[in-house]
Amino acid sequence: MDEDLWAVVPAGGAGTRLWPLSRAHAPKFLHDLGGTGRTLLQATYDRLEPLVGDRLLVVTGAVHQDAVRGQLPELPAEHVVAEPSPRDSMAAIGLAAALVERRDPDAVIGSFAADHVIADPDAFRACVTEAAAVARTGVLVTIGIDPDRPSTGFGYIRLAERLGDFPTAHAVASFVEKPDLDRATAYVASGEYRWNAGMFVARASVLLDLLAEEQPDLAAGVRAIAAEPDRIDEIWPGLTKIAIDHAVAEPAAAAGRVAVVPGSFGWEDIGDFEALRDLLAAAGDAKGLQVLGDAADVVAVDASGLVVPMSGRTVAVLGLDDVVVVDTGDALLVTTTERAQDVKAVVEALKANGRADLA
Amino acid sequence: MDEDLWAVVPAGGAGTRLWPLSRAHAPKFLHDLGGTGRTLLQATYDRLEPLVGDRLLVVTGAVHQDAVRGQLPELPAEHVVAEPSPRDSMAAIGLAAALVERRDPDAVIGSFAADHVIADPDAFRACVTEAAAVARTGVLVTIGIDPDRPSTGFGYIRLAERLGDFPTAHAVASFVEKPDLDRATAYVASGEYRWNAGMFVARASVLLDLLAEEQPDLAAGVRAIAAEPDRIDEIWPGLTKIAIDHAVAEPAAAAGRVAVVPGSFGWEDIGDFEALRDLLAAAGDAKGLQVLGDAADVVAVDASGLVVPMSGRTVAVLGLDDVVVVDTGDALLVTTTERAQDVKAVVEALKANGRADLA
Repeated sequence: MDEDLWAVVPAGGAGTRLWPLSRAHAPKFLHDLGGTGRTLLQATYDRLEPLVGDRLLVVTGAVHQDAVRGQLPELPAEHVVAEPSPRDSMAAIGLAAALVERRDPDAVIGSFAADHVIADPDAFRACVTEAAAVARTGVLVTIGIDPDRPSTGFGYIRLAERLGDFPTAHAVASFVEKPDLDRATAYVASGEYRWNAGMFVARASVLLDLLAEEQPDLAAGVRAIAAEPDRIDEIWPGLTKIAIDHAVAEPAAAAGRVAVVPGSFGWEDIGDFEALRDLLAAAGDAKGLQVLGDAADVVAVDASGLVVPMSGRTVAVLGLDDVVVVDTGDALLVTTTERAQDVKAVVEALKANGRADLA
Repeated sequence: MDEDLWAVVPAGGAGTRLWPLSRAHAPKFLHDLGGTGRTLLQATYDRLEPLVGDRLLVVTGAVHQDAVRGQLPELPAEHVVAEPSPRDSMAAIGLAAALVERRDPDAVIGSFAADHVIADPDAFRACVTEAAAVARTGVLVTIGIDPDRPSTGFGYIRLAERLGDFPTAHAVASFVEKPDLDRATAYVASGEYRWNAGMFVARASVLLDLLAEEQPDLAAGVRAIAAEPDRIDEIWPGLTKIAIDHAVAEPAAAAGRVAVVPGSFGWEDIGDFEALRDLLAAAGDAKGLQVLGDAADVVAVDASGLVVPMSGRTVAVLGLDDVVVVDTGDALLVTTTERAQDVKAVVEALKANGRADLA
C-alpha cells in the first residue's frame, strides 16, 4: 500500500440502457449486476481497498449520497462527496483532485468508474501500482485495456514508445474516437491500440495544473471549492461541463505528457443487457438462458437470453431465443439482446407518456 | 321466449394454454377475455337470457360454484349445480338434463359451453330457436358453425339432406374427428361440412333416452341423482367419464337421429393466446400490438403481438414481433403467438418444479 495513493470513484450516470433494473433514482452502480452479492460500487471499493485503504473518495449526485454511504459503511462519511448537479467527469474528478491536493499536493490519485466490472482484481491492482509509479514522474497516466475484440463501443489509445524505466508502460501517441468496425479491426490487428476505459492516474497537482492550462476557470473553481467547501452551491453551477478526456487527456497526449500502462484483467463496461448476458454467460456454467437473481423464480422452455427476476414473481419464458426479460416491482421490460442498445427509446417513450416516475 | 326451453352451461376446463391468465382456481370462463367488461361466463348468460330467462343451469366444479354465483347474481343460487369432481361433459350435461326432465319431461335443453365467444348474439339466438323447433320433433340437434378457414383444431359435422320443414336445418351424416390440413381444406371447399362447436339441443327426455341406449348406467345414475340430490356424493364418482359427442351424438348420427342447424355468428373458442390476439385484433382498431387490459400500462416500441397487463405494473416491449406477454400478480409469461399452443409445457414444468400452486 502506497500511502500517497488515493482512489477517486466517480459514481454517476443513470445507466438508461439497463432500465428497469437501473433507474434515475437507483443507477446501475448501486446494483449487483454480476450476481456476486456485491453491487458494482461495492465491488469497486473491494478492488481498490487493498491499494488505498480508506483513502478513497466517491463523487456522486446529491440524491445518491445516502445510498452510497449505506452501501459503503466502512468508508468515512466525508469521503462521499456530493455534486449539487451533474457537471460531467472533469468537474467531479477535478473536485476530488482538489480535495486531495489540499491534504497532500504530491499525492497520486487514480480515477476509476463505479460501474465497471473487472474479473481479475489482482491484475488490475498490479496495473494501478505501475501506473502510480509512472505518475510519480509527473505525467498523466491512463490504463489501456488489451482489446479482445474489435469493439466499436469504446475509444482507443494509440501506443507510442515503451518507457524503459517501467515494466510495461508506453508513451501515448493519441486518443482516438470510437472507430467503425473496419478501423477497429485494423486497430486490434496492429497491436498498437488499447481500449480507453477512462482510468486516469496522476499526481493531484499535475492533473489540476494540466487542467489549468486548458480550462483555467474550471481548475480555479474546483480548487476554490476545496478551499471553501461552503461555496460549492455558488461555484458549482458555473463550472464547464466537459469530460476529462477532452479537458485534459487529449491535449496532454498531443503535448507528449501522457503514458499508458496496458492491462488485461477482464474489464467490462456493462452498458446494456446484451453485455450483461455475456458477462453472466462467461462467469457461469448455465447454458442458454442466463438468470441474474434466483433461478428458482424462472421457468424456461426452449428459451435463451437473459432473465432478471427481481419482483419475487415466477417468470416463464417459452420458445424465444436471445430474449431479455427484466421483471421489477413496478415495471417489466421484454426485449432482445439484439435490441438491448435501444432500451433508451423505451425510457424516452415512458417520459413522453407522462411516466417519468418510472424512468 | 319459449317457456319449454332451458339452457345448460357446462363451466369446466382449466384453460391451461391460457396460463397465467387462466388458472386451475380461476379458469378462463371466469375471465373477461374479450375486454368487454363481462367475463366469458357472464357473456354466455347475457346471450342466453333473452331466450330462457332464468331457466338456465350452470354445471361447474364444486370449487368454482361460489365464483359462478358471484358472477351471476341474477341467477337463482340453485341453478348453479356443483359437480363433486370432473366427470367429462356427458355426466355434467346429463345431470342437468335429468334435473330439467323432472320438472318438465318435454322441456327442450340447449347446452352451450361457458367459455366461447360469439360476436353476433342475435344470429346465435336465431339458430338456437330453429334448433329448439327441430328438437321438438324428437331428434338430437347440433349447431354447426360455418367454417371461415380450414381449421385443424375442431371436429367437423358432415351435412346430409335438408330438412324441408325448417328454414336451414339438415340431417347429419356423421361427426368427423379433427382433420389434417388437407382434409380440412377439402371439407371447407366442399361446402358440406360445419365445425362441431359442441352445442347440442334436444328434449331432456330424448337426450337421456339416447344416453340410456348407449350408456345405461350413466343415464340411470344422473336420473337417480336428480330424483334424490343427496345421493350425488355416492353416485357421482361411479359415473363413466365420457364426452357427450362419443356418448350420444356420434351413435345417434349413425342411426340417423341427429339434425344440424348451420350457423354463422362469429363463434370463437379462445383456446390459446394466439386465438386471443386474433380475437382482439378483429374486434379493435389497434394495429400491431393488442392489449387486453389498460393500454396505458403498456409501452411498445417496434412490437406486435399481445400484452395482458394484469398486475398494474408498466409493461415495456421493444423489438419483438408476435410476442405474448401476460403479466399477473404472481406469475409472468413471455412467449410467442407461434408457441401459444405449447403453454401447457410451462404449466407442466411448474408442477414438476413444485410450483403447482401457480398452475
